[in-house]
Formats: sequence, C-alpha cells, structure tokens
Amino acid sequence: MKKVNVAIVGATGAVGTKILEKLLERNFPMNSIKLLASKRSAGMEITANGQKFIVEETVPESFDGIDIAFFSAGGNISKMFVSEAVDRGAVVIDNTSAFRMTADIPLVVPEVNPEALKRHSGIIANPNCSTIQMVTALEPIRQKLGLSRVIVSTYQAVSGAGIEAIDELQKQSAEFESRATNEANLLPTGSGERFYPIAFNAIPQIDAFDTSGYTLEELKMINETKKIFENNKLQVSATCVRIPVVSGHSESIYFEIENDDTSVADIQALLENAPGIVLQDNPDKQSYPMALFAEGEDAVFVGRIRKDPDHPNGFHMWVVTDNLLKGAALNSVQIAECLINEKG
Amino acid sequence: MKKVNVAIVGATGAVGTKILEKLLERNFPMNSIKLLASKRSAGMEITANGQKFIVEETVPESFDGIDIAFFSAGGNISKMFVSEAVDRGAVVIDNTSAFRMTADIPLVVPEVNPEALKRHSGIIANPNCSTIQMVTALEPIRQKLGLSRVIVSTYQAVSGAGIEAIDELQKQSAEFESRATNEANLLPTGSGERFYPIAFNAIPQIDAFDTSGYTLEELKMINETKKIFENNKLQVSATCVRIPVVSGHSESIYFEIENDDTSVADIQALLENAPGIVLQDNPDKQSYPMALFAEGEDAVFVGRIRKDPDHPNGFHMWVVTDNLLKGAALNSVQIAECLINEKG
Repeated sequence: MKKVNVAIVGATGAVGTKILEKLLERNFPMNSIKLLASKRSAGMEITANGQKFIVEETVPESFDGIDIAFFSAGGNISKMFVSEAVDRGAVVIDNTSAFRMTADIPLVVPEVNPEALKRHSGIIANPNCSTIQMVTALEPIRQKLGLSRVIVSTYQAVSGAGIEAIDELQKQSAEFESRATNEANLLPTGSGERFYPIAFNAIPQIDAFDTSGYTLEELKMINETKKIFENNKLQVSATCVRIPVVSGHSESIYFEIENDDTSVADIQALLENAPGIVLQDNPDKQSYPMALFAEGEDAVFVGRIRKDPDHPNGFHMWVVTDNLLKGAALNSVQIAECLINEKG
Repeated sequence: MKKVNVAIVGATGAVGTKILEKLLERNFPMNSIKLLASKRSAGMEITANGQKFIVEETVPESFDGIDIAFFSAGGNISKMFVSEAVDRGAVVIDNTSAFRMTADIPLVVPEVNPEALKRHSGIIANPNCSTIQMVTALEPIRQKLGLSRVIVSTYQAVSGAGIEAIDELQKQSAEFESRATNEANLLPTGSGERFYPIAFNAIPQIDAFDTSGYTLEELKMINETKKIFENNKLQVSATCVRIPVVSGHSESIYFEIENDDTSVADIQALLENAPGIVLQDNPDKQSYPMALFAEGEDAVFVGRIRKDPDHPNGFHMWVVTDNLLKGAALNSVQIAECLINEKG
C-alpha cells in the first residue's frame, strides 16, 4: 500500500487534535503529516502518542504534494482553502458544514454509505456530529425493516463548541452558588448576541436560528439524514439542546419502521451485529449508554430500545457517542481509510 | 372565608419546605400549620418567610382537627397515613405516586382540570412533576385545536430526587478532572443497585424499570396525561432523562393536533394568554426558556414553538418549569386554594 502525505487544517482545535491522534493510533499509512492552523498558532508544538509536531500557518502552498487534507477549522477556512488543496491534487475530507449539502459532494459515514465515496471529485464532506451517530444507529434498522419517520431530541456536549467551551464549563461548574449569574462568553453560539451559562443549565439553541424557527444544527440533522439515506421522503424532525457534558452527545430517537411485525428483540439483534455499534441495553442491570462513559470511546452506544405503547411501528432508542471521535475525527479518518483501501 | 388547619407531611424535604413557603407567600388562609416528618426529624426547627416552626413526628393523631393535609414524604408514608388523615376529616393533597392512578381519585392541575376536584372523596392526587408542566402547556392547545399525539423527551433536574441529590451534584461538579470516577450514592434511583455520577452526564433512567422497558417515570407521564385529559385514545410516549441541573425540568415536546390549518403564531397566541404560562419565544432575541433561570419561578415557560417540516399537524415546543414549584409544591397549594374557594 502506498503511503500518503497528509495535512490537517485546524490541527490545534478540539477535532484537529483528535484526527492526529486517531491517524497515529490506527497506523494510518502516512509518508508525512503536516499540521496546519492560523498564523497565530504557527510554531506551536503538539505532542500526540509520544511524538512531537510543529504547527505551520495554512497558506495555499501548504497543500503542494499533499494526498489527503483533513479540514476542521470552521466553514470559512474551508471555503478559503479547500479549492486550493483540490487544485494541488489533494483529496479533501471536510469536517465543516461548508460543502455538506452541495449536491455532487458525497456526505459519508463509512458504516452507512461508503459507496457514495466513489462519486467524489476531490471533496468528501464529513456529516455533522449529531447526524453521524443517529444514522449509524438507524442504518441497520433502515436496511432490514425500512424507515419512514424520525423525531430526535439531542443532549449535546460542550466540546462540540471547541476547547474553550470545555474550559468555560469547568469554571462555571465550580461556582455552584452563583450559577445563575456565572460569566458566559461562548455559548450558545459565537455568532449570537447573548451568552448564557451552560453549567447547571440546558440551552435549547445550538448554532444560529433560521427563519423557520429551527436552528442550523437542527436543520443539519434533518437535511443531512435525508441526503445520507438518499431519501427525501423520510420524515425527519429534530430539537437540538446543549447540556453540561464535556464530550459525548446523547440522543433520544423516536423512529417508525415500515415492517409491521417487529419486536424489540429483533431490533436489538440487528444492532448487536452492526459495525461501529455497541449495544448496551439491559434495564435489569441498569445498563444503558451514558455520555460520561462514552468520552474517549470509538463506538456508537445504543440502548433503551422499546416500543411506542400507542403506535405499532414506533420505537425509541437512546444513542450516545463521543462527538469528537465517531462524531468527527474518527469518522474522517475512517473515510480516509476507505479511500486508501480502494486505491490500494 | 373560614381559616383552616393545615399539616405538611414530609415538611423537611425538598418539596415539603416549598409547600410551607408557598402557603406563607400566597397568604393561604391558615388557622394553624403543623409540620410533620419522621421521628428522626422531630424537634428540628424550620424557618420560612422569617417565621420559625418546630417539626413533629407523624403519628395518626397528628391529623386530629386538620382540615387540609399535604403529603410529600414518599409513597410508603402516604400509604401508611393518608387514610388516617382522611378518617379524621382532613382532605389530603398527596404529592406521591401512591394514589394517582386510582380510578376515583382526582388527579388535578388547576389550570387544566379543576372540575375533577368536585369528585373527590378525601384524597386528591398531585401529578408527577414532569406531567404537570407538560399538560399545563398542552391544555390551551388541546382545548382549541384538539390533541392526538404527544412524544416527549425530558431533561430533568436533580432536585426531583431530593435535597441530598442537589448536594451530590454540587460535590461532583467541583471534581471536573475525576468526573468519570466521582463518588455516586443516590442516582439514578435509590431502589436500584447501581449508582452513576450525574455531574457532566445524562442518565436515561428516572425511577425503576418496568418489564415493558419503560421506567416508572416514563409510565407516569404516559398514564397521568391520559387520565388528566380524560382521553385514553391520546397517543403518548415518553423518554425521561436526568441531567446536571439543580432545579427546573426541561421538556422537548412533539405534538400533533387535530386542526389542519394552524400556524405557529396561532399556537403562540393561545399560550400567551393561558393561565400559569409565560411565553418566551423569540429566536431573533435568543429568547427561549432555560432551566437555570426557571429556578424559583412559578410559571411554566414555553418557547421554541415550530412546525414539523414533514408533518402538517405536527409541532415542537420546549417547556421549562421549576419542578419543586409548579411541578410539585405550587400545584399542591393551588389545589388547596381551589378547595377553599369552593367552600368559601
């Protein structure tokens, strides 16, 4: 297998550092790795798996000779540099929302739609974190039983808003008595005008609002799910909420299947043998997925599977994964592995 | 108006202390007030609104001469003493789950079904906290537009598990680095065998599991909602989750109405003028309900109202209230006020 030259744009960020760790941990066949970030971070030293790396400023020439470039520095940086990278011959795996809904750019979760990779012309989009874990858990069900409807409510961690948001949660959490007046500078969204403490709170806003009343995060879940499943008739609706968790998004997913005669045990059996999924579903042992224990783990954890008492085709499940790993860095590295294996 | 003799059973608990505060704050017409608790708490001094009270042990004779007895000391204490109180002529307002689903015992939220009070024979049940805020927000919609379906996911505060659970959250929250191994002794439920940290976590279990895979908390929401709305055909399903919030339950409620031609503005108008509700629904100003700011407030806050993009009759809303107040103590005191006003 040919070893490739890799670049990570946004290498100092919450996701960028995890991409580097996953590449090293999974022995991705690299000839070289270039860590790129803003001018401000140039010269910074990053240590991962015992190795030291020096961060460079991102400029168009950074991509000369690069085979695979991971982008995770925000939509604006992607819009600025992705075409520079592609023009220089790199395949871009973009972890921002910049290209996800562009019709001819594949939006890929390797466990769900790896075949979409074949249609790429230089750019592959990594879906939003909250979408990835949902479609990974739904795919084995969709494949065997048909899927007609999804209603999801999320419980999302602060790490999705970057390393600074983790620091803010830690600071606020230590100030219990003053919780309602704790200083807040980051959440719900940097693009907004108001900031609220996240410690001891639940904020029903992630990203900005659309004129429909939905947030962009909710629209990402709705639109990306339809694109990944290639089914515009699938009914999807979402409510996205930030809660005081460090890393690990939880999702309360209601879904309706097409098959009329399905038991909870049938669905458990499908998920038990599905790639990327760990079934944690034993109420007798109080065993179910929890964000606190998903932090640092690769799997999508699924539990609390049960039938809607009033709808024959309706089910609930509770799905948890580390939003920085399967929700972002791991999924991107898996996409790169698919590309390499195809070429190999 | 005749002044009445009042007793509070469980007066030292999270809800009991709030019942006392609300009685005083709302100038409930009391001739006397007796604070009752376990033998262990007898002699304890409680201060509320500048007045001092001494706690007494609950014995059958405690209820001699009592007109209204609030019970909030757990289902077992209610089963032991409620009939003693009723036999001695008291009307009991019970805040436990002991009698809620008993067919001839009214389950009352004054903004929703005050007429049910007329059918009581000594016991009135106060619904579960998570049910109260949901039916309060749904009632104005149900009344005008018809209601056919509800799917709810909750984000519940620790105060619902008692004062000790608040202390445990505070302690764990200060131990950020060791979050995955923090000591846990209370949650998810005292009746279980395993305990998990709640700080920096989301626990998808409140109360014990039923053989259906639902928790008792979820079944309470399902069954109580049907009873309060007197509609067994109403489709209701629930997922109940504990999150690291002190007091203030949040609920992501999806609902379908019967009326075909309803806008978000129609629903906002209904809720804006509804009793007990404060509408906080202005995305442009990032205005929506949040648990951290509902703590200590009487209202049920409603926001994030929006239409399901794929279902003409489907809507979402985000409903928050202080689970110790409208979710428990305030609702009980309002029931007592209804009783008094009827008699007066």
